[in-house]
Amino acid sequence: MGEAMRWSDGFIAVDWGTTNRRAYLIDAGGACRGRFEDAQGALVTKDFPAAVAEIRARLDDKPLLLAGMVGSNKGWVEAPYVPCPAGLDDLAANLKWAGEREAIVPGVSYIGQGRADVMRGEEVQLLGGVAAGSVPPNALVCHPGTHNKWALLRHGIIQNFSTVMTGELFNLLKQHSILADLMGGEVAVNDAFRAGARHGLSHSDLTAELFAIRARVLLGVAARDDAAAYASGLLIGSDVRTGLGDAAPGDVFVMGRPDLTALYSAALAEAGRSAIELDGERSFLAGITRIAETL
Amino acid sequence: MGEAMRWSDGFIAVDWGTTNRRAYLIDAGGACRGRFEDAQGALVTKDFPAAVAEIRARLDDKPLLLAGMVGSNKGWVEAPYVPCPAGLDDLAANLKWAGEREAIVPGVSYIGQGRADVMRGEEVQLLGGVAAGSVPPNALVCHPGTHNKWALLRHGIIQNFSTVMTGELFNLLKQHSILADLMGGEVAVNDAFRAGARHGLSHSDLTAELFAIRARVLLGVAARDDAAAYASGLLIGSDVRTGLGDAAPGDVFVMGRPDLTALYSAALAEAGRSAIELDGERSFLAGITRIAETL
Repeated sequence: MGEAMRWSDGFIAVDWGTTNRRAYLIDAGGACRGRFEDAQGALVTKDFPAAVAEIRARLDDKPLLLAGMVGSNKGWVEAPYVPCPAGLDDLAANLKWAGEREAIVPGVSYIGQGRADVMRGEEVQLLGGVAAGSVPPNALVCHPGTHNKWALLRHGIIQNFSTVMTGELFNLLKQHSILADLMGGEVAVNDAFRAGARHGLSHSDLTAELFAIRARVLLGVAARDDAAAYASGLLIGSDVRTGLGDAAPGDVFVMGRPDLTALYSAALAEAGRSAIELDGERSFLAGITRIAETL
Repeated sequence: MGEAMRWSDGFIAVDWGTTNRRAYLIDAGGACRGRFEDAQGALVTKDFPAAVAEIRARLDDKPLLLAGMVGSNKGWVEAPYVPCPAGLDDLAANLKWAGEREAIVPGVSYIGQGRADVMRGEEVQLLGGVAAGSVPPNALVCHPGTHNKWALLRHGIIQNFSTVMTGELFNLLKQHSILADLMGGEVAVNDAFRAGARHGLSHSDLTAELFAIRARVLLGVAARDDAAAYASGLLIGSDVRTGLGDAAPGDVFVMGRPDLTALYSAALAEAGRSAIELDGERSFLAGITRIAETL
């Protein structure tokens, strides 16, 4: 009971990813009273107890509920994946206690249909969107990022999902590939992006189409300045083709950073689907608060 | 006439790629009398006249016929692409003279069917295979490498081709991606490679399947040591799916380094196609000699 009292007096929620962490002070009424964000990601953190003490020093001396890569085998303490179908209650029932006042939310796994997949961090946002009322209990949700997630929600529970490593592939191509010197241009929703998206939606030979970006510029078929936007469109169009698969008609909920949700929304429009863009942070806070309420 | 006499007295052929060069001394009878290979690729060469003088010092004071990236906009002198359909006569008629005794073979381009593509260096091998009698005049030829080429030959001429950047993508994933720490295992034609190839042949969502490699290991569905071979199979299977497209039945001619042709041959077998593996060097020498005979 003492434990429960402490959590209901407020807590600190941390979305602790690979390269960043975002920490929020949540009061007894569920309102956010303070926050900060920095580059102290789980992969660069060596001393987690010290990092946690620093979070408390910056926000308040409250219990911590942590989500994201902090619970991976490269993080603080590994919180084993909860298999699909998985809802907020399943996450809450499988918290991993890293200390007396520090609990880690598990990730979610999927094995089936000849596939295997994992997520860690996005599950709180996906399920939190339903808890916040911004995502209906039955929905197809797209969560862009380094590794984009397509999640099928049924009755407010993650039924199935698949990951497409679009963001990482774009960065690899931009930084290290033969396309690198063509990819300095701006990526925005423009004609080049939409042309790339249409191509990605209708072609299944992505590894060939990527090389063609270079050939198009060399042969004067496309402008060099358009190559980055076209490449982004091609990758996201291909991603949307994969994600929609044989999904039923209806709106697609796109959750995440606004610059990324705008790109996915535009690619979905090229596929004839309407998208509803959502703020991932608000969904995270709704989800993590709902989990804290069970403590 | 003096010029023609000199070439028929023998010449030096150079296959001068991005990262390597291979030089051959060809005598008046067409036999190879000397050769060397080093890492003095076109992208690291600053002083081409000096590099050419060094080649002559090592082999003989003969005219040079150069092919490959040496003729690109990042090489010595740019030799503009010859558009498809392109045969050895077209290459010979469009040599770019970098000096009085140094000619560069042009690359080949394709624009059509909403696509654009380029090759530079492989064209001599592809057409040389026909000149050598090892590839029939009507054939589908696969040329693995950093950028795999699928070429459709008709009447001994390159009719159409497409590039799949499989080798480069594998290297990017192995060196820089989230899969890097899984990709230390050996790549060989084994059960993991064949399973990956079958998956790549039957699935069009490569960017999702790549992430699944990590998920499969994390969830214990696949062995960590198998990940590199599986990834190679997945990429090559996907490549073969693209390259076969709606190609007519029949043997596929796979030309290149024996370690790579073995992998593509195995993936083609999973697709129910038989492959004939060919030595790219022998084809290069036949092609470049045929071009030299026109001088």
